[in-house]
Amino acid sequence: MARVYLDHNATTPLRAQAREAMIAAMDVVGNPSSVHAEGRKAKSVLERARSDVASAFGADGADVIFTGSATESAALALAGRGLHAADIEHDAVGAWVTADIAVGQDGAVVVPRPQESCVQLANSETGIVQTLPQGLAVSDMTQAFGKIPLSFNWTGAQMALVSAHKLGGPKGIGALVVTRGTDVRAQIKGGGQEMGRRSGTENVIGAAGFAAAATAAAQDLANGVWDRVATLRDLLEDALVSQAPDTIFIGTAGTRLPNTLCLATSGWKGETQVMQMDLAGYAISAGSACSSGKVRASRVLRAMGYADDVAAGAIRVSLGPETTEQDVLGFADAWLTQYRKYRARAA
Amino acid sequence: MARVYLDHNATTPLRAQAREAMIAAMDVVGNPSSVHAEGRKAKSVLERARSDVASAFGADGADVIFTGSATESAALALAGRGLHAADIEHDAVGAWVTADIAVGQDGAVVVPRPQESCVQLANSETGIVQTLPQGLAVSDMTQAFGKIPLSFNWTGAQMALVSAHKLGGPKGIGALVVTRGTDVRAQIKGGGQEMGRRSGTENVIGAAGFAAAATAAAQDLANGVWDRVATLRDLLEDALVSQAPDTIFIGTAGTRLPNTLCLATSGWKGETQVMQMDLAGYAISAGSACSSGKVRASRVLRAMGYADDVAAGAIRVSLGPETTEQDVLGFADAWLTQYRKYRARAA
Repeated sequence: MARVYLDHNATTPLRAQAREAMIAAMDVVGNPSSVHAEGRKAKSVLERARSDVASAFGADGADVIFTGSATESAALALAGRGLHAADIEHDAVGAWVTADIAVGQDGAVVVPRPQESCVQLANSETGIVQTLPQGLAVSDMTQAFGKIPLSFNWTGAQMALVSAHKLGGPKGIGALVVTRGTDVRAQIKGGGQEMGRRSGTENVIGAAGFAAAATAAAQDLANGVWDRVATLRDLLEDALVSQAPDTIFIGTAGTRLPNTLCLATSGWKGETQVMQMDLAGYAISAGSACSSGKVRASRVLRAMGYADDVAAGAIRVSLGPETTEQDVLGFADAWLTQYRKYRARAA
Repeated sequence: MARVYLDHNATTPLRAQAREAMIAAMDVVGNPSSVHAEGRKAKSVLERARSDVASAFGADGADVIFTGSATESAALALAGRGLHAADIEHDAVGAWVTADIAVGQDGAVVVPRPQESCVQLANSETGIVQTLPQGLAVSDMTQAFGKIPLSFNWTGAQMALVSAHKLGGPKGIGALVVTRGTDVRAQIKGGGQEMGRRSGTENVIGAAGFAAAATAAAQDLANGVWDRVATLRDLLEDALVSQAPDTIFIGTAGTRLPNTLCLATSGWKGETQVMQMDLAGYAISAGSACSSGKVRASRVLRAMGYADDVAAGAIRVSLGPETTEQDVLGFADAWLTQYRKYRARAA
């Protein structure tokens, strides 16, 4: 049975351009820190990648610090700073902040002190996009980068977290992007790579893949690919809304990522739905995937004021550039089949 | 002009087996934390890689925690612990330890309190191999892994740092290997990957490459490939010793890595030699490469008691499995040509 992958917010298939760039970078022999010809060649591939990521992210003139993941970027940006956030951030941010900023039922946050706060640009579970306040200390732009038009330099944030594998690049590389001159205290020390902010021999192959994927993602955005994805997402939403009257569709009133649909059915566990859809050939998720198989009531939905049994019944369907109309209509059929069985049992 | 790469201790060309494994892993779509079929497939590739690295490292039954580099492994193993070390460790270790353990001129260290100390198994600059004391807290085995027969489980160390790119794997992935049950406090927090010890979506492609390279390296060792390399290293050393009477050959009395030759010529800067050899087509290094182009008097040689002008005149030639007799004899000719010019100028 052909599989349909509708979990792009968890991770994405590697883009063809990233694959090619990575295979080409496999022939680069040197260490970017070496001064000989092989080292200089590796350095030039790395710096070209850095420049391409900056361009795709609208961050020309900012510093792109390559890390091993957006999670590492979060630790580098946030550890020891005592910033504030709402309880809708990814666990990688939540680990370092005080979650005392209120969240509306529409998912929007109002930030009293932007310079002491971290706010995500888009939520991984609901797709809800925040209007960032000027002067924000840190923003997690991992889910937004590559899916919506975005220029770091115009967001007014001092630092942003991003990841390659959410936009068609490889897992294992992310970046912390900071306005030039920002003081970043290294947590991984040693050789002084990344301008002393993150030591360790650089992931040259990964950086090349990140850059190629980010560039391709920017081109997709310019070409309207995500408008087509949004149309498919809306088609799926309409197909479900009309047939599942008890199901709550999250964040539909405001601005969402074009690819994300979050729906909650009180009493029907998200975990169960994920397994049933998996058996039917569809990969989706309950809550954020980045939690080592843990499946719980969505912390994000609870923060938005939803009851526990609603939050526990939430699933996320996240489309990608390669998703087709057949994919979403097939998913709607498969989900509604299970939904009706659930309703019959619950009745 | 064909280039000859003799800087394998800085980084290695990607092994064919690693390349193949990485390209195969590029087709893996899922996130290892996802519970659906795509996620389980990614998880199985990751766990197979972990098991293969453990086997190649003689660490069956130990925990292999994947990181972004041996440098990150060092931070994870050492930060906040106040361990002791000699001043011959890599900067990534030196950043976290008190360098108060004495070093003999032969490069050997005697460790008063192994349980509070970190000792490298082999030095990156000199190739000198230490006899590790039982009960050692941490050992940097980055340079040794893949070049000499080695079983983590027999070293008696509680933790070891290793890296993929020193043995033919990709840059951007390393590991911290710990005896099972060891308490490791996560520094990068969030999704709880790597058994809660290092969060962040895992580098699946990199792990596959690391595992394939480590397995191939273990096979090379079993097949005597490094004995052949040692013969070439000795051939090179003999060719130079007989012609360069003022040059000091470091660590020749004891046990060294089979591929490493460190030689120091007082008054002739290592940096100059590296540039001259680069122009002649040979990639070598002065000191450790992992220092972002910084070239200084070797801290390692100074710790061994050599004078500053000797330490500043050191170079490292490090061979690999693909190095040929022609490569080393060509290097000897090129180096001796410059050596004679230097002597003529100095006279």
